[in-house]
Amino acid sequence: MSIRTLRSMFIVAASLACLVAAAPAFAADPLPSWNDGASKKAIMAFVAKTTERNSPDFVTPDDRIATFDNDGTLWAEQPMYSQLLFALDRVKVLAPQHPEWKDTEPFASLLKGDVKGALAGGEAAIGKIVMTTHAGMTTEEFDKIVKDWIASARHPVTKRPYTEMVYQPMLELLAYLRANGFKTFIVSGGGVDFMRPWTEKVYGIPPDQVVGSSGKVQFELRDGKPVLVKLPEINFIDDKAGKPVGIHQYIGRRPIAAFGNSDGDQQMLEWTAAGTGARFALIVHHDDAKREWAYDRTSHIGTLDKAWDEAVAKGWTVVSMKDDWKSIYPPERK
Amino acid sequence: MSIRTLRSMFIVAASLACLVAAAPAFAADPLPSWNDGASKKAIMAFVAKTTERNSPDFVTPDDRIATFDNDGTLWAEQPMYSQLLFALDRVKVLAPQHPEWKDTEPFASLLKGDVKGALAGGEAAIGKIVMTTHAGMTTEEFDKIVKDWIASARHPVTKRPYTEMVYQPMLELLAYLRANGFKTFIVSGGGVDFMRPWTEKVYGIPPDQVVGSSGKVQFELRDGKPVLVKLPEINFIDDKAGKPVGIHQYIGRRPIAAFGNSDGDQQMLEWTAAGTGARFALIVHHDDAKREWAYDRTSHIGTLDKAWDEAVAKGWTVVSMKDDWKSIYPPERK
Repeated sequence: MSIRTLRSMFIVAASLACLVAAAPAFAADPLPSWNDGASKKAIMAFVAKTTERNSPDFVTPDDRIATFDNDGTLWAEQPMYSQLLFALDRVKVLAPQHPEWKDTEPFASLLKGDVKGALAGGEAAIGKIVMTTHAGMTTEEFDKIVKDWIASARHPVTKRPYTEMVYQPMLELLAYLRANGFKTFIVSGGGVDFMRPWTEKVYGIPPDQVVGSSGKVQFELRDGKPVLVKLPEINFIDDKAGKPVGIHQYIGRRPIAAFGNSDGDQQMLEWTAAGTGARFALIVHHDDAKREWAYDRTSHIGTLDKAWDEAVAKGWTVVSMKDDWKSIYPPERK
Repeated sequence: MSIRTLRSMFIVAASLACLVAAAPAFAADPLPSWNDGASKKAIMAFVAKTTERNSPDFVTPDDRIATFDNDGTLWAEQPMYSQLLFALDRVKVLAPQHPEWKDTEPFASLLKGDVKGALAGGEAAIGKIVMTTHAGMTTEEFDKIVKDWIASARHPVTKRPYTEMVYQPMLELLAYLRANGFKTFIVSGGGVDFMRPWTEKVYGIPPDQVVGSSGKVQFELRDGKPVLVKLPEINFIDDKAGKPVGIHQYIGRRPIAAFGNSDGDQQMLEWTAAGTGARFALIVHHDDAKREWAYDRTSHIGTLDKAWDEAVAKGWTVVSMKDDWKSIYPPERK
């Protein structure tokens, strides 16, 4: 064998090896927890047409912005929003420092275990509970409180950690979109300081890609050390018409795909769908009383009424959890 | 040569080729417009110690957050903030629709070419000019107005496009940090809607990584089409103590490196420097009257006084534009 032949062989071998290394992995089903049906087909068709170079609907990676509601879209919101359950737990922890709560609603009812009675005060009662439990500490202190709670608290019905009450098919969808060059954002009515401590670990979504409701914070020097103090004052409510506003203020670009489950997501879906070029709007319909919960038009939590009508009228994708999803939650961690 | 030898050769060749492909490119100077000196050395030492795996100061890529002021840090702010020059140009364009401006300050002076007289009304006058020119249209309309202006306007002194009034050494610094796994953000007192239309192209910083001051926006349906309307109402002022607040609300993580040039950046630098682990705080000092402008303690624009004292006291890096920078602006585009 001549040196020249050897050299040629080297080059061929090297080229082949690099081709193999550069080739995509065997194209396994990217959405294995989704049944083959109209919803899965619509998702995959949208991703294909916006990412294939020669497609007339091709979208440059910079503009591949996808926004997801959290409660009821990425994780369970029944029998109550997890953040409210967190707040109720905090009231119990803080009660010894607040003897006056024994005679003050909504705290008195809560401490007697009467959650329904406490929440009878409606939004004002919820506001009091949230402000009391989400303000008065530094942002770093609150971050630690949330991390400790999320690591130890259990869902009241399933007894699983809240971070396992997430929807396996949606985890796959997030990863699938990211693998196709989409930047994934949360746009939730939930508190941004309540979500950011764990969204990266659970959803692969970093803090700066989480948009949510917030309270005001104030910069202070305490013994010369700068801190940010959480004030009992609303800064922004990221719900309903607030969602497109939040998208503009925090993301600064209109999404080409949006995912929600309730009337609180209607304006985000409208804003997303109304842009030029290929658009995708999806609603998760909770119709699986056996494996999760079944609720829509008349539910107090996650009301799906007007947004459902609009989805049908405009041809948005409506996911049936019962029919479209092979499994709901990820397998339990041992 | 046996088949086995051939196979071994193939494997060796393939491995070598892939090693070569994976090896970093020849390590050219990543900061060619920086003179070798204490500032450049400090930057490179910080990047090395936070990114080398075995360093005791190693920071995981997720936490490599770097924030940059814009006016005076990434681009020139003299003889006046570019956004104010934009607003003055807009007043002229809008004047025919506002005959009443002929007798109303600050517009009357402005339209006579008396900028100094117009701005004599101080913050109230500036507020009127900004609100009139930055509100009353949809976010998409404003986006187009900014894009058109930035594409055609010229700096009053150098006659160069504003997008070329950026600092070449800082462009290199942004790219160098990103090449080392840092996520770069703008945290500016300037308007976020004024910056986002061009920051990606000019700095490589996408809209969702731009934090700035903002007005309120409102979601509306116009003939069934959703729009966001810019209201003449302040939403957030991202300056001074507002900068750490903006970092918390929009980014959700404390930077490990921050870059500014004035007292407006002092709290951002304090907040950044006060975190645990390796930290980097840098101030650009405008001391180059020949190639740029020289101003600091007594300047009305970009006042650098208290932050300078703190930088000296705390050992932050103070960049001398005159001594540390080989060039100020990028070469002119032909």
